[in-house]
Amino acid sequence: MFKAEIKSETLKGLVNIISTLIDEVKFTIDSEGMSLKAVDPAHVAMIEMEIGAKAFESFVANETEIGVDLDKIKTVLKLASAGDIITMEQDEDRGRLIFKVGNITRRMNLVDTSGMSDPKVPQLTLSANIGVVASELQKGIRAAESISDHIALTADSESFELSCEGDTDSASLKIDSDNLEHLEASSKVCSLFPLDYFSNLVKAVPSETVVNVELDNDYPVKLVFSLADGNGSVRYLLAPRIESD
Amino acid sequence: MFKAEIKSETLKGLVNIISTLIDEVKFTIDSEGMSLKAVDPAHVAMIEMEIGAKAFESFVANETEIGVDLDKIKTVLKLASAGDIITMEQDEDRGRLIFKVGNITRRMNLVDTSGMSDPKVPQLTLSANIGVVASELQKGIRAAESISDHIALTADSESFELSCEGDTDSASLKIDSDNLEHLEASSKVCSLFPLDYFSNLVKAVPSETVVNVELDNDYPVKLVFSLADGNGSVRYLLAPRIESD
Amino acid sequence: MFKAEIKSETLKGLVNIISTLIDEVKFTIDSEGMSLKAVDPAHVAMIEMEIGAKAFESFVANETEIGVDLDKIKTVLKLASAGDIITMEQDEDRGRLIFKVGNITRRMNLVDTSGMSDPKVPQLTLSANIGVVASELQKGIRAAESISDHIALTADSESFELSCEGDTDSASLKIDSDNLEHLEASSKVCSLFPLDYFSNLVKAVPSETVVNVELDNDYPVKLVFSLADGNGSVRYLLAPRIESD
Repeated sequence: MFKAEIKSETLKGLVNIISTLIDEVKFTIDSEGMSLKAVDPAHVAMIEMEIGAKAFESFVANETEIGVDLDKIKTVLKLASAGDIITMEQDEDRGRLIFKVGNITRRMNLVDTSGMSDPKVPQLTLSANIGVVASELQKGIRAAESISDHIALTADSESFELSCEGDTDSASLKIDSDNLEHLEASSKVCSLFPLDYFSNLVKAVPSETVVNVELDNDYPVKLVFSLADGNGSVRYLLAPRIESD
Repeated sequence: MFKAEIKSETLKGLVNIISTLIDEVKFTIDSEGMSLKAVDPAHVAMIEMEIGAKAFESFVANETEIGVDLDKIKTVLKLASAGDIITMEQDEDRGRLIFKVGNITRRMNLVDTSGMSDPKVPQLTLSANIGVVASELQKGIRAAESISDHIALTADSESFELSCEGDTDSASLKIDSDNLEHLEASSKVCSLFPLDYFSNLVKAVPSETVVNVELDNDYPVKLVFSLADGNGSVRYLLAPRIESD
Repeated sequence: MFKAEIKSETLKGLVNIISTLIDEVKFTIDSEGMSLKAVDPAHVAMIEMEIGAKAFESFVANETEIGVDLDKIKTVLKLASAGDIITMEQDEDRGRLIFKVGNITRRMNLVDTSGMSDPKVPQLTLSANIGVVASELQKGIRAAESISDHIALTADSESFELSCEGDTDSASLKIDSDNLEHLEASSKVCSLFPLDYFSNLVKAVPSETVVNVELDNDYPVKLVFSLADGNGSVRYLLAPRIESD
């Protein structure tokens, strides 16, 4: 059983983040809230999201799982105006999820979750830890876009840098520790990542959100941030590209 | 003979409505105003429009007919800013229509109207009569768009509903009589219509316009509304899709 | 040696004008400022631009030439917000140009200028001279766009006119001398020009800029205007289309 009310902006924020990685998703639900773990089809990135009951205007649920097609939820979001409350209710008998926005009712079949296994999220300890607002990451991505398919993240004790190197051109964005939320890096670390994955995720994060970047040498990067006014959290892991020279 | 001045917004409103159905149109003109009757090439929908002389800033005409290409009038409208007055004048000697917008003069050949016969508009008496603002119809259409090619209109004594049913999903928008301008339906009536025709017309209606919907069981729907600040009127008939099960 | 700071809007204004004609450009630089001469690949139009050192926030240079790819400068401009100052510096050792916008550094290889010869700009004395704001030229172009590939410019002692004639339609914009900045035309002159070239340039000129149009019969048109708050100037020559009837 699951019935909840949520602000359309909050639901939109969640969906934007998840849909950078996958189209269909399994939410695990209990009385405390919803959670999901997902990996993209190419196994390059992984997301863990937790949304507490307080992120909702109202939330009543027993333990259950629902599989949903995110594109369908996006069509519901298009029917809502800013400030609208969206009601979601599981219709267990018919295997449906029912959305209500004002005087509109939208029913959709749930996606079969039997083939969706929970990915195992590796426990990583990464030596550098940087707190940076998403807008700065977004600016670094825009600078990189015309130059290369990869972006390097580098941190040392004084600054955090996004950079990329093409055949004839290069671009970099360097942020001094003064302009970071925090910076912990005992030695210099650097890893290279696929720009498209990094860009898709970072552009889906609201620009004023502080993102915690955990980084090491030729290791995955972990991006941790909160959403839904602090009532939800995301951990995103992206595999590095190891250059073989 | 025909010479008139009209606000660009008013002309744009007329053209938007008519061009949902046809590209070339014959206006019948006399000293009282202009009118047109047209049916779309597939004979699914029909429109009757009357625009009184008062819809114009100035209007002088003898009985005449002019055939115009609506796409060309749209190019003239793009040259006008909000608040501009557009002058239209028939050049009978050369078979042209001359538009003036500020210091721009735009001359266009008239379309030959000899092959354009006036469609016969059927007189229909439909049992349900609903007054609803266009914005609600537009909202119902948006909800239907991803689900089906058809939209059902249903009325009973208590509410008016737009709904559609797909293979796995459904959507509906229900409006209680309290939120309608008026509702007269002695018994429940329902007909199914092609979504594209219905959508094209309804989206061309200014969102705050009250549309009078006349409905019956498996019968055409008649949409009646005014335009040009009440100085013009439209009657639109759309054939139903009869389901053969 | 070349190092300069420039407002992003000023740099954008220059690039927009030049890129209507060519993709790669050679700037000739000395301590007084920058200049360029360029002809389009089809030899239909020619541009001469001079940008004085005062157009820059700071400007230090010895005599040098730099070849740049305008598309790359456009990607730098996209990284700047209105009001941002862009720093440009030549890295002579590595044949690079280095742009800085805030905390972003963008390095690009210079384009080889050895094959770029300066076109010889013909000295023309044209009998009519018209001063007109760019917005009026832009309006005349919009009126012409759906009708023909050519636009006629006509001046006599009383007015300046942009017009075009299609098979069935025509459009014209006539500006009385009262609404021109100035008008000198002892007799009537008229030439026909390719609409695409004329349109691309005129649309790149800020709408409030006064353009000096020099015109004659079946002769090139010369458009002269200033940019960068009067600290730069452009002379643009466009070949006429001579009708052979």
